[in-house]
Amino acid sequence: MRASILAIGDEIVAGLTTDTNSAFLAQVLRASGVEVVGFLAVADDVDAIRRALLRATDDAGFVVSTGGLGPTADDLTTSAVAGFVGTGLDLHEPSLRIIEERFRAMGVRMPPNNRKQAMLPSGSEPIPNRLGTAPGFAISTDRNGRSCHIICLPGVPREMKRMTEETVIPWIVRRAGKQHIGSRVFSTVGLTESALDDMLSGVVGDKEARLSFRAAFPRLQTRISIVGKSAEEVESRLEALDARIRDRLGDHVYAIGDEGLEETVGKLLLEKGSTLAVAESCTGGLIGHRITEVAGSSAYFSLGIVAYSNEMKTALLEVSPRTLEASGAVSEATVREMARGVRKASGAAIGLATSGIAGPSGGSDGKPVGTVCIGLAWETGEWSGTFQLGQRTREWIKEMTAQMGLDAVRRYLLDAPLDPLPRDDRPPIRDRGALS
Amino acid sequence: MRASILAIGDEIVAGLTTDTNSAFLAQVLRASGVEVVGFLAVADDVDAIRRALLRATDDAGFVVSTGGLGPTADDLTTSAVAGFVGTGLDLHEPSLRIIEERFRAMGVRMPPNNRKQAMLPSGSEPIPNRLGTAPGFAISTDRNGRSCHIICLPGVPREMKRMTEETVIPWIVRRAGKQHIGSRVFSTVGLTESALDDMLSGVVGDKEARLSFRAAFPRLQTRISIVGKSAEEVESRLEALDARIRDRLGDHVYAIGDEGLEETVGKLLLEKGSTLAVAESCTGGLIGHRITEVAGSSAYFSLGIVAYSNEMKTALLEVSPRTLEASGAVSEATVREMARGVRKASGAAIGLATSGIAGPSGGSDGKPVGTVCIGLAWETGEWSGTFQLGQRTREWIKEMTAQMGLDAVRRYLLDAPLDPLPRDDRPPIRDRGALS
Repeated sequence: MRASILAIGDEIVAGLTTDTNSAFLAQVLRASGVEVVGFLAVADDVDAIRRALLRATDDAGFVVSTGGLGPTADDLTTSAVAGFVGTGLDLHEPSLRIIEERFRAMGVRMPPNNRKQAMLPSGSEPIPNRLGTAPGFAISTDRNGRSCHIICLPGVPREMKRMTEETVIPWIVRRAGKQHIGSRVFSTVGLTESALDDMLSGVVGDKEARLSFRAAFPRLQTRISIVGKSAEEVESRLEALDARIRDRLGDHVYAIGDEGLEETVGKLLLEKGSTLAVAESCTGGLIGHRITEVAGSSAYFSLGIVAYSNEMKTALLEVSPRTLEASGAVSEATVREMARGVRKASGAAIGLATSGIAGPSGGSDGKPVGTVCIGLAWETGEWSGTFQLGQRTREWIKEMTAQMGLDAVRRYLLDAPLDPLPRDDRPPIRDRGALS
Repeated sequence: MRASILAIGDEIVAGLTTDTNSAFLAQVLRASGVEVVGFLAVADDVDAIRRALLRATDDAGFVVSTGGLGPTADDLTTSAVAGFVGTGLDLHEPSLRIIEERFRAMGVRMPPNNRKQAMLPSGSEPIPNRLGTAPGFAISTDRNGRSCHIICLPGVPREMKRMTEETVIPWIVRRAGKQHIGSRVFSTVGLTESALDDMLSGVVGDKEARLSFRAAFPRLQTRISIVGKSAEEVESRLEALDARIRDRLGDHVYAIGDEGLEETVGKLLLEKGSTLAVAESCTGGLIGHRITEVAGSSAYFSLGIVAYSNEMKTALLEVSPRTLEASGAVSEATVREMARGVRKASGAAIGLATSGIAGPSGGSDGKPVGTVCIGLAWETGEWSGTFQLGQRTREWIKEMTAQMGLDAVRRYLLDAPLDPLPRDDRPPIRDRGALS
């Protein structure tokens, strides 16, 4: 089975938004045994969309499009597809009720133009959207004497991904015949993509499974995908590969599945009945932000202090002015005092602290941009480390420091070595996934 | 003049690499007066590349491709283009000498397969690559009775960008003739996409300019794009439209261009010589994180306190236990005390505080999930507001609260009304751009 992927949007063709949807779709379609033959991207323009549909259906029996399902006048995908298939639009009452209900739950009257989002091509099958107002749809048509399936999804990545996983992949698998597909994702920390590649080299035979990497900085994941004859066969082959992969990657694997390190740390804190407080300098609040993205985090997180100036480090965290004078704000001595200070101020079991030079200015010969210190304090001890992350962007340095800080807490809670990373001047992670 | 952009590579169509080259090219081509009509992406396959070239040259007089110029057997762009144009390959001696020289400088003998990179289609014009071994090339051909220019660049973003700026853009501008393109972006806060659509309805005539919206939650932008005969004409038409658009949108426009609210607020704080400290509850550190994404923010930001529990609100921000008892943690009385408290602890000129129910649990009849309070304190006064953001995701509520908090600071610094948002139960922004 072959598929063609179509991205629709003025902002994409203008280069204002980088299309990440097509790559995501290509990965999951491939993992489901579908061959992706190409991508197309066109503006929100009925003629351009129609020409793209002609081309896409020439190339493949499946076309998956993203974008152009919004409520405004420049969202034209639905009417362009209806025109291409040669059908009209019908109001899909259940979708309208869902959209109205979404607005009602938010305490808002639905704006009249959102009604447009419930108008679907006659004869199409709606694809529910649990995260937004625009339902997607699938419609079939004849082209060149064979049937073609066109699947239209919204362009918002979060909605599109959820709909793909919940509805599109099962829809495709049902039509694809009897093969069973399974996959497993390993979320890792502290490794570069090329280190992962090296460590896993030879572990999975070409015929056994498909191995792919996905970097969504700071997340780095390895996926194994298997096509087999039964669900049982797929599951038992996944189990065997799982053991071989964990054997190679060790405690760099922090979760199975697409999970943020803040979720893993939250689960561990709950499990151990422990609590955490953070004192942030260079990360500026990012660690607190990530911890509190997890529902229920108030059970184990009570306090974060962003002490951005030396004065605040002394006033709120009891960092001694002598330490700041002698060692500087970016030093292991300082982060240890910060970690102790926030632990004391909060009464939490664990104190985590960060300090570093996020740049672009503020670096020196001894402490260039990218120098980062992380400290951890607990009742009976403490730990600190210094890392050279290199001359990266401010955003990258903050993200990587937060990731390393959370990993230190994870390692402490697991009784794993706290010094997993090389102490030389090699940055722990290459700038591959990049900030987007 | 119109251009079509083509990305060539197995790894792109497999979804393993996100194609960022096409968006870059679209931006710089547009800025040079070229209309980009679409993107295509295909695998390293001679037939697929040839079919893509047919389509691309049907659509536009310029085709710019990236990828497939490497030394290995799966790099097929050069021979596919030569086949498409109906010409052979010649060894380009100066390029070969440059490639050999690069290897010599690295102290390595050139592997024989790199010689392939100096084989260019007969009649093509080489495009020098100062950062890598693969030169690019431009070649012209006739299609449908008009001449088409095909420009091939390597896929490595760094090399491709440098070659585009040094050679391709000047090459295009020389051939482009007289069309000028200009655009202006308005970044707004406190409006939904459909409210924007309504407010701007009729303000720009179809022939005057193209109006487009872009939501990258919590950012919401409106862009006007104009094609004209001279740079002066384009500029003066943009100015006229600018006045009409600002007249409609008022102080919802916080910046011209793609700028985050944290940058706008940072500039205003610097400009006014003011300073800010934040006391966060439901936003969990997100406001501090956003403020410190801006280089140089230490000049105006010294302290953030994430007081996630009532105890910490009292211990660090001097919120009275009586207030917490009588009004609750999510109340205007509490955020006023938090704002005052963080102002006092930090010595900053402005204190900003947030408290809310981010969910999914913790809501009640009187204070459902999505109830959010924002407080502001300054030397001579204070302000607070309560907003019902509705039953959204935790991430959305945090993002929107941070946006509204930063907007309160902006409004305070601009002497604009601090109550810009309807005090009824209508949330200020619909969930369009969504978190990705």
